[in-house]
Amino acid sequence: MRLALCQINPTVGDVDGNAAKIAAWIERARAAGAELAIFPELCVPGYPAEDLYLKHHFLAANVAAVEELARGLAPGITAMVGFAEPVEAGGDYRHAYNSLAVLADGAVRRVYRKNRLPNYSVFDEQRYFVPGTEGDAVEVAGTRVGLTICEDTWAPGPPGQAEADAGARLISNPSGSPYHRGKGHEREEMFGQRAREYGSYFAFVNLVGGQDELVFDGQSFLLGPDGAVLARAAQFEEDLVVVDVPAPEGEPAPLADALPDLDEVYGALELGLHDYVEKNGFRHVGLGISGGIDSALVAMLAVDALGPERVTLVVMPSPHSSDETQDDARQIAHNLGTELIDIPIEPMMDGYRDALDRHLNPAAADSDSSPSDPTKPSEPDLAAENIQARIRGNLMMALSNRHGWLVLTTGNKSEMSVGYATLYGDMAGGFAVIKDVPKTLVYELVERRNERAGRELVPASVIERPPSAELRPDQLDSDSLPDYDLLDRILEAYVERDEGRDEMVAAGMPGEIVDEVIRLVDRSEYKRRQAAPGIRITPRAFGRDRRLPITNRFGG
Amino acid sequence: MRLALCQINPTVGDVDGNAAKIAAWIERARAAGAELAIFPELCVPGYPAEDLYLKHHFLAANVAAVEELARGLAPGITAMVGFAEPVEAGGDYRHAYNSLAVLADGAVRRVYRKNRLPNYSVFDEQRYFVPGTEGDAVEVAGTRVGLTICEDTWAPGPPGQAEADAGARLISNPSGSPYHRGKGHEREEMFGQRAREYGSYFAFVNLVGGQDELVFDGQSFLLGPDGAVLARAAQFEEDLVVVDVPAPEGEPAPLADALPDLDEVYGALELGLHDYVEKNGFRHVGLGISGGIDSALVAMLAVDALGPERVTLVVMPSPHSSDETQDDARQIAHNLGTELIDIPIEPMMDGYRDALDRHLNPAAADSDSSPSDPTKPSEPDLAAENIQARIRGNLMMALSNRHGWLVLTTGNKSEMSVGYATLYGDMAGGFAVIKDVPKTLVYELVERRNERAGRELVPASVIERPPSAELRPDQLDSDSLPDYDLLDRILEAYVERDEGRDEMVAAGMPGEIVDEVIRLVDRSEYKRRQAAPGIRITPRAFGRDRRLPITNRFGG
Repeated sequence: MRLALCQINPTVGDVDGNAAKIAAWIERARAAGAELAIFPELCVPGYPAEDLYLKHHFLAANVAAVEELARGLAPGITAMVGFAEPVEAGGDYRHAYNSLAVLADGAVRRVYRKNRLPNYSVFDEQRYFVPGTEGDAVEVAGTRVGLTICEDTWAPGPPGQAEADAGARLISNPSGSPYHRGKGHEREEMFGQRAREYGSYFAFVNLVGGQDELVFDGQSFLLGPDGAVLARAAQFEEDLVVVDVPAPEGEPAPLADALPDLDEVYGALELGLHDYVEKNGFRHVGLGISGGIDSALVAMLAVDALGPERVTLVVMPSPHSSDETQDDARQIAHNLGTELIDIPIEPMMDGYRDALDRHLNPAAADSDSSPSDPTKPSEPDLAAENIQARIRGNLMMALSNRHGWLVLTTGNKSEMSVGYATLYGDMAGGFAVIKDVPKTLVYELVERRNERAGRELVPASVIERPPSAELRPDQLDSDSLPDYDLLDRILEAYVERDEGRDEMVAAGMPGEIVDEVIRLVDRSEYKRRQAAPGIRITPRAFGRDRRLPITNRFGG
Repeated sequence: MRLALCQINPTVGDVDGNAAKIAAWIERARAAGAELAIFPELCVPGYPAEDLYLKHHFLAANVAAVEELARGLAPGITAMVGFAEPVEAGGDYRHAYNSLAVLADGAVRRVYRKNRLPNYSVFDEQRYFVPGTEGDAVEVAGTRVGLTICEDTWAPGPPGQAEADAGARLISNPSGSPYHRGKGHEREEMFGQRAREYGSYFAFVNLVGGQDELVFDGQSFLLGPDGAVLARAAQFEEDLVVVDVPAPEGEPAPLADALPDLDEVYGALELGLHDYVEKNGFRHVGLGISGGIDSALVAMLAVDALGPERVTLVVMPSPHSSDETQDDARQIAHNLGTELIDIPIEPMMDGYRDALDRHLNPAAADSDSSPSDPTKPSEPDLAAENIQARIRGNLMMALSNRHGWLVLTTGNKSEMSVGYATLYGDMAGGFAVIKDVPKTLVYELVERRNERAGRELVPASVIERPPSAELRPDQLDSDSLPDYDLLDRILEAYVERDEGRDEMVAAGMPGEIVDEVIRLVDRSEYKRRQAAPGIRITPRAFGRDRRLPITNRFGG
């Protein structure tokens, strides 16, 4: 049997657009001689469409699209497409199954309903779907194909095992499996185990594309009954892989290379950003660039995702900005070929100081000195520091309002964890590209991108300079935060693995610093709740993946 | 048997504090002669503690607290307390049951595990808990008491029915049932039906208190086997209700009155605000007051929840602010007895205009005229309007940073729905008190509060003036939005009932306006995602209750 792994990038909610894409890909598969075209999970409505799955009229639209696809199907090919199947009657608050329609000869020939509905991590499928309770298989071109969907085969047993036991030669597994670092390799290992248990061929067909926080990385594959990878689709792009089952002897296998670790992370960020911009209809993005490493990485990603002509960098120096960082910021814009706008913020800082001095510094207000008397300055404090960040945020948003830009924020995961960011300041923007990238990984990604470019797209001085927010004279991140190597290790244990203080200390981390980091993470929950969404690249990102109350007196 | 309904207000994560409160209340119940003290669902760890329930060390802490409570229990009383019971072994990603510990004679005598785990609306219990599969009952003072938890009895059948059939005279139902408008009445009706089905007494013991978006309204009750309400605890406050089963003839029933509709909504908002402030450790709140109806309501609520000495109102006039609204703002502060701060924003508007003019208005920049030449003003546009709101947001946040205030935002549900609010401007703040209150209800609540005060706490001019954001000369909300009566009807259908366009039009709403409102609601999702949390008072609030993707091409 000739099989097509149809790794497409649908858009959530775009039922008609997704169906049109599926129809075109069925034709491509058929033209390549495929007898079976497998599409990803829920590719007609898009995934995850969240509470759209609760809307009756949304379900009706996706059913109509599936029926239309079936009617339009040319002879000689069977297609498997994921859709949200309305529950006929007697449903509870949930109105749908997470289903797979098997289309052939002008009609929907069979519908399989996902048995195992993940409800952990980023998944809420038990909020939306009624589980199916039965396995199923279809005969395609003389081969018996067992039907499963994603989670169904993430553990041993039925429905996959039952279908294999009943004679399925191939287990089909349309999926919507989101990326985190190294996930593709994990899937090949785990499903290899499954294929050996089943003693069957195994076809994993994943979504590809960005959807808000999530990136689906593709990397669909066909495994042999021994777990060997017989075909592999590309990561982070649409791909049609046509392969015969069993594989003919002596022909080269269609095996896309898996990317090296850092390039994989970079690819995920690039695709997540690209798709957020395109699927939401933005033509242009803007970001503030400071000369620091974080905004340098986001600028690189934006240019790689969109091209330099769709990116504007904005440098907004204050009196605390050093000439060196300003020069670096301008150099980065030059190297990347983007537009650069320069707006000094000192005049606005003066305005706020005049307006606020008596309210921020009651002592001065009670004296006879003028509020802006330079001989009696207010203590530089958090309020004044934050105002600088917020002026910059306002400027970015004004440019966004005027020109229709999407503003990108540049905070990394280490900062977002401990609240080392200004709400409505550097946190102002629509998409937080690197919010799940720890600071130590930011450096690695920039260095690797320079290496791939064969030149210093980002100057070495940006990489070597000690990190600073430059909100007061001679400020360094290390004044208020532990060394980033240690901080990132603590954060990984606390945020990604839910370890408690005692476990971390037992693992050799210093107790005093652990306590302080836990305190900072916990009390920054309110900030994160108002942060822009960003791209998940770790096993636990801030967002739908880690849901903690703001009001929370548990220490750790 | 003498029964105590222990309607307490625990704090999420405060395991030791909650246990201490429970111990004190058991003593109070015992002193009143109670033989059985029933506490709400998950009262030891707090509810909903969200992903805290996934932390092993959090579970361990709550188990230790329950064991300590059991050891400290005086003879003669049985106590039922809700806790998160760790799964011994073989659990999946979930590590706990949602359980009820029955404490007596110095030990945990029995543990019941909730059978039905809600996973819809604001509930995610299948993310956290493994369902129990068995019913259970205990004998207390000669009476057989069937054990259930909240959702277990929201539909007919087991486990409640099975225990009643097996001879339970009383069904105990500790709950964590959040408020929406009219919910208390719904519960009494629905559980009355249940009591009749069971032919048993029915004790509903609810949490009370605010937890981020949710308010638990209390209103615990005891029903007779005929569904009659035999005892009712207060709404929106802690309450200990002691009542005998069966009720002795001729004694008055301990029946707190249920509040009239508008007072109930007001009470929910007041408690939600109070608890967010207190449980997060704030001493003071501040809010911008414009002279409009929304900030007037929030100011009233803040003063009622916290007292006038803990509230500062900040009036921030621009050249577009009318004398009348300014006077009204000052009058409200005077009537409520709060501090008032006055910070005109024109100087900062000038600073931004100078800095941005050439970037917002390229034509002017290309000419020879000075960017701030008053004879060639920039077109008043969205960017300039938003800058005013954002200057105000910055000022509020600076005061917050300096003085440790919680900043309250004042946007209502109608505005939050259609995006008629400025991100980082009037949306800047930590708690969005009335974000689930439709504009038409804002008026009703203010009028009712004036009526209760017996005087115009909020001047009639505020209520009578046509709504305006005052961001440009002569601006009115009605310039860009439909009449609020119609808007709120459309929003209720679309947001709260998930109706589609065709259903709304069939119900008589004008198609063109329905289309426009749907478009505005859908495209404002990114703003709401960055909004502060606020108090849920309707059956579907923005927040954990309505989870829609930002990237979404489905129109409606």
